[in-house]
Amino acid sequence: MPFVDHRNQKIRRSKEELLKHMQTFKLDLKFSVGIWYFTPGGGRFHEPYVEQKGIPERIEMAAEMAKYGVKGIEAHYPAEVNEENLHLYKQLEKETGIRLVAVPLSLFYDKIFEFGSLSNPYEKYRKIAYERLVNGLKLVKEANADICIIWPGIDGYTYSYGHLYYHMWDTFEELVAQAMDEVPGVQVAIEPKPYEPAPNNIYRTTADGILAARDIEARLKNPENLKLLQEGHALVGLNPEVGHVRMGFEDLPYAYARVAREGRLFHTHWNSQPLGNYDQDLNIGVVDWDSTEALLYTLKMVGYQGYFGIDINPERIPVVKAIEINTKVLQIMNERIERLPHDRIIECYFDPENHRGELELILAENHR
Amino acid sequence: MPFVDHRNQKIRRSKEELLKHMQTFKLDLKFSVGIWYFTPGGGRFHEPYVEQKGIPERIEMAAEMAKYGVKGIEAHYPAEVNEENLHLYKQLEKETGIRLVAVPLSLFYDKIFEFGSLSNPYEKYRKIAYERLVNGLKLVKEANADICIIWPGIDGYTYSYGHLYYHMWDTFEELVAQAMDEVPGVQVAIEPKPYEPAPNNIYRTTADGILAARDIEARLKNPENLKLLQEGHALVGLNPEVGHVRMGFEDLPYAYARVAREGRLFHTHWNSQPLGNYDQDLNIGVVDWDSTEALLYTLKMVGYQGYFGIDINPERIPVVKAIEINTKVLQIMNERIERLPHDRIIECYFDPENHRGELELILAENHR
Amino acid sequence: MPFVDHRNQKIRRSKEELLKHMQTFKLDLKFSVGIWYFTPGGGRFHEPYVEQKGIPERIEMAAEMAKYGVKGIEAHYPAEVNEENLHLYKQLEKETGIRLVAVPLSLFYDKIFEFGSLSNPYEKYRKIAYERLVNGLKLVKEANADICIIWPGIDGYTYSYGHLYYHMWDTFEELVAQAMDEVPGVQVAIEPKPYEPAPNNIYRTTADGILAARDIEARLKNPENLKLLQEGHALVGLNPEVGHVRMGFEDLPYAYARVAREGRLFHTHWNSQPLGNYDQDLNIGVVDWDSTEALLYTLKMVGYQGYFGIDINPERIPVVKAIEINTKVLQIMNERIERLPHDRIIECYFDPENHRGELELILAENHR
Amino acid sequence: MPFVDHRNQKIRRSKEELLKHMQTFKLDLKFSVGIWYFTPGGGRFHEPYVEQKGIPERIEMAAEMAKYGVKGIEAHYPAEVNEENLHLYKQLEKETGIRLVAVPLSLFYDKIFEFGSLSNPYEKYRKIAYERLVNGLKLVKEANADICIIWPGIDGYTYSYGHLYYHMWDTFEELVAQAMDEVPGVQVAIEPKPYEPAPNNIYRTTADGILAARDIEARLKNPENLKLLQEGHALVGLNPEVGHVRMGFEDLPYAYARVAREGRLFHTHWNSQPLGNYDQDLNIGVVDWDSTEALLYTLKMVGYQGYFGIDINPERIPVVKAIEINTKVLQIMNERIERLPHDRIIECYFDPENHRGELELILAENHR
Repeated sequence: MPFVDHRNQKIRRSKEELLKHMQTFKLDLKFSVGIWYFTPGGGRFHEPYVEQKGIPERIEMAAEMAKYGVKGIEAHYPAEVNEENLHLYKQLEKETGIRLVAVPLSLFYDKIFEFGSLSNPYEKYRKIAYERLVNGLKLVKEANADICIIWPGIDGYTYSYGHLYYHMWDTFEELVAQAMDEVPGVQVAIEPKPYEPAPNNIYRTTADGILAARDIEARLKNPENLKLLQEGHALVGLNPEVGHVRMGFEDLPYAYARVAREGRLFHTHWNSQPLGNYDQDLNIGVVDWDSTEALLYTLKMVGYQGYFGIDINPERIPVVKAIEINTKVLQIMNERIERLPHDRIIECYFDPENHRGELELILAENHR
Repeated sequence: MPFVDHRNQKIRRSKEELLKHMQTFKLDLKFSVGIWYFTPGGGRFHEPYVEQKGIPERIEMAAEMAKYGVKGIEAHYPAEVNEENLHLYKQLEKETGIRLVAVPLSLFYDKIFEFGSLSNPYEKYRKIAYERLVNGLKLVKEANADICIIWPGIDGYTYSYGHLYYHMWDTFEELVAQAMDEVPGVQVAIEPKPYEPAPNNIYRTTADGILAARDIEARLKNPENLKLLQEGHALVGLNPEVGHVRMGFEDLPYAYARVAREGRLFHTHWNSQPLGNYDQDLNIGVVDWDSTEALLYTLKMVGYQGYFGIDINPERIPVVKAIEINTKVLQIMNERIERLPHDRIIECYFDPENHRGELELILAENHR
Repeated sequence: MPFVDHRNQKIRRSKEELLKHMQTFKLDLKFSVGIWYFTPGGGRFHEPYVEQKGIPERIEMAAEMAKYGVKGIEAHYPAEVNEENLHLYKQLEKETGIRLVAVPLSLFYDKIFEFGSLSNPYEKYRKIAYERLVNGLKLVKEANADICIIWPGIDGYTYSYGHLYYHMWDTFEELVAQAMDEVPGVQVAIEPKPYEPAPNNIYRTTADGILAARDIEARLKNPENLKLLQEGHALVGLNPEVGHVRMGFEDLPYAYARVAREGRLFHTHWNSQPLGNYDQDLNIGVVDWDSTEALLYTLKMVGYQGYFGIDINPERIPVVKAIEINTKVLQIMNERIERLPHDRIIECYFDPENHRGELELILAENHR
Repeated sequence: MPFVDHRNQKIRRSKEELLKHMQTFKLDLKFSVGIWYFTPGGGRFHEPYVEQKGIPERIEMAAEMAKYGVKGIEAHYPAEVNEENLHLYKQLEKETGIRLVAVPLSLFYDKIFEFGSLSNPYEKYRKIAYERLVNGLKLVKEANADICIIWPGIDGYTYSYGHLYYHMWDTFEELVAQAMDEVPGVQVAIEPKPYEPAPNNIYRTTADGILAARDIEARLKNPENLKLLQEGHALVGLNPEVGHVRMGFEDLPYAYARVAREGRLFHTHWNSQPLGNYDQDLNIGVVDWDSTEALLYTLKMVGYQGYFGIDINPERIPVVKAIEINTKVLQIMNERIERLPHDRIIECYFDPENHRGELELILAENHR
């Protein structure tokens, strides 16, 4: 398994160093896709608009996406990737170069998780979740994937009145730490979300996710893990999703910068979303293009070298077409940020009194 | 079919008349329930937590609810009530007094409505929607129900850029008017919602719904309908749902008062919901109890005499238990508003300079 | 006084007519500016960052803006324009062509309006507001301005519990109608806002403003006014402000289209704003450029011929610079929408099944 | 100076221990008030409604509040409390027992902080802010106050595009750490806020504030400070304000529990606020009473022993009356939570499958 070094994200640069960095470092748009949205399955209010397909057929669809720059695929363990079908992903990699980069865990859909997975108040359900987590970490190792993603979508609560917050957080964090110590050396990325499907999620915002990452790391005991921490690596990072971040009324570049600042930006999930609202998973850039572009600029600034995971729900668009669109949008954004006068933008930050209105003009001109 | 007279909602009262009204008019909590949520069906992110049941079994469940003051039931045409099974509802009424009061239309779930129902850009799909609407209106007549509800959940749009708003609204409103002229004398209640499942709905807020109501009425031509309008009746009204109203960041009492002010408050749907967010359909009063109670007080003020439709999604609570809770909550709220000193509250409105802080104290004391 | 004819906004176009319209009608960017923000005055949390200036000096600043395409100015009656200083505006027009186009009323700032202006529960304060309104309408006539703007910022309420909504709306609407009958033939534009400074405003959303417009018109009795209404003119319209619309979580193009659809889009106010939040009055396009551009495209679609009023609060930018930026942004947006393939966009609306993903690609390509 | 020990907040309790704690620990409602809102000063959109008064007169007003249980006062350094007038506060304490408990810093209002205080890009302004901070910490010591509060209201940014996040956070945090090392042993409480007056603040949410607290502590070097940290004390804590927390769409009990969990809940500021919106600073309990009551219940659960700082903006209510109301509301809430069956509530958490709907019924019954 590759152990990806994200420590460079923590580098602090002087004004001059930053300028040089902006002039030399370019984002490498390595795209990854999530197999779960290849044939979107409808929801509470409408039936599916496309025919549902099995994993082998979906892997064939993935192969078609290589031409758009897709280099990675993501699949939930065990619902979409598991010990039995891992060979299909290996074959995909061999044939197209698209490798399994991230493995989110199936810790939300099943009925047994009605009251949570790793924070479930009942030990019997926690145990199932824990085993799934351990096996998922093992599969990540076996598959040579980069990270295991935990989106605790069903962990949380309906009512805040009388809720035992300490117990919820402690239980969850202790189990993640235990599992990581059982399968050491695997990087775990938490994906926060404020709500949906739980009315209130266990980790609402990006900063909540960072706190969880730190607190889980503080519980680690396995020497292999401790060694990595001592070397300055993070073992628990984040996979912030644009949509989730905006559901929480956060500012996109702020959120991702906060994560990168401590070397925890393990992965990124992209789509678009109005502030608040339900989880729309729209194509990238169709809502508030500029804040996504600003995020890209921030990622350039912090030297992000990871994947760009497209995480959409293309209910009404064939997924291959959707991937064409989303990769193109990120490429156009990337070209646009490269056209910007980095020196002047940095000057606007350091000397605002003498550059009133200049940033606005720079950005406006870039829309011509 | 009963033609319910809502004109009294329009009455303007002087200060003295209002006080007298507040001292004499009490809300009659006639509850109705929606058969669609008796066995909630899961969603995009988790499977169902309860066993799914058919219509006959659900009607049996309804019978159990009579003891909590349930007097009405609501069912979608044709998915839940139709020409074939209407007798089951008749029997329910005979045995328990629970009558079919409102018939929402199945104009959102089906795949054919992928791009809308009555505002669908394709005539072939609009035609199907139109026929369903006409037949639904006929069923309302046949069933002696009070109203037909239209929640245009899938009518709307994903992107506002380049959308043909005029066409969307005109198409929808013209078809509703045509159908109402084909089956005259049936009251139609529109239920607005800002988003979900459509990323943007055709009628976002309560005021949008009122505009639609007026604009549809302005298209009516059937003499029977015109006569009713001339007599001061509304033919198109609203069924505001607490959750939808709050998803749109509206103020609850404001929204319902705006509808009642023109005699269009045909029905009410109750649950609770944070501002914005996804459509939670929580039990009444569990989020922001006070704003629901304030709504009840406003309904007392405008003399609302309709049903109190409980519209929840009790994913984790047996529905009969949920109905017990929700009816009890509304009853407690109703008792609470009856304890209030209406004279002092009215005085606070008319003479705020001399009653600074008094309303706060009144409401605080009512929490003891 | 010019009576501006907005009836063309109501035209419904077939697909072919719309295409022809899109290919031939171009928005004419007549800019107007508001004298109130020339030297922003600080707020609750910080002192002013620029030196405060009197009206004569500010009118000199306006003259400098002519070179950026500014053709109109707006000033509050009587705080900024009144019977005594109107000649300064006349002179500005003579020297620069910048005319007084809109006169908002000073119906919020003064201490006497602590509990509202035209909806104040006390008759003595309502009377003052009413006189100000009548005199404002007269000044509009005398000044040959296009419209009187009413932003009822302090009309509303703090608590919804026990509020007398009917009384609030009736009082306000009756007084506006009376004043309009006293000074007939003057077009009045209401500017809704959900909140701030009143915790809850009397007209929260655009649709609320439309309802108010219709309801005020329904109270008019002066034959001159009635004649205009019979000819299909609106006498009460709206001046939707981008920031206010987004504070209410509305969709920009939806909101403005709803107003134009009945010929009530008398004026437009431009800036930018996150959804919800406090009233930021940021430069146009700096938050969610695309939704503003989508609004411009919608205005082209409905044939808007009015002014583009820049309504910002340039606390940290010299106002002339700010006007340079804001006019440039709107011009760039206008050039961008003219580059679009209108035929394909219209096709996407009418035939979505065969154009899945095409609109996204069109808009993405326009960002290159 | 008292060094307040908050370590007990970190105690984890088993189910049995928690039940015992709930049955024995009662919140002690020690109220404190903020001298800044005694005569509210108007804002951008309206003039003040009350006569403005000087510090000596306001201190006299504070004396009147002792009868409502007020035990503490808070004042900004140096605008409201400083080396020259500290004796007035000492005298107040002697006469009424109301002591100076918290000293927020004047780091936002002045023109010099146009582009930030401790994170200002210009060293010359940072220096002024730094000196104010150091002197503020000294005054806290001299005054025997409990904490220094930093609300970085003007630190942040207008546009996220091109912003240097790392520099902003590093600069701020380094200066706070330096100052704390210069005046060791003083506890500092950060008060996050998502926006207003800065369009985007440096620490948006409670979790952001916790991260800042940890990161500042990690920079401390003074042995006196290090010793305290080693003993398990926090030196940087938070002062979450209900209004700010809700402006950021956070869940109140969640946010405060997160802070207390690491012994950082140094102080609390109370008012009420809709989600999002502008900063309303309404009386406690007038918006969403229940979520405030739920917060109180959570504070009981974590054993909070600090002050209850009332932080309102009583524009239309005499401040003494407002304090009467707000103290009464908190007292009523406190009585209400004491009536609850703690055992059953805890059981609902640990055994949800067998207590479906019970929490709802418990809370509903408590409203009778």
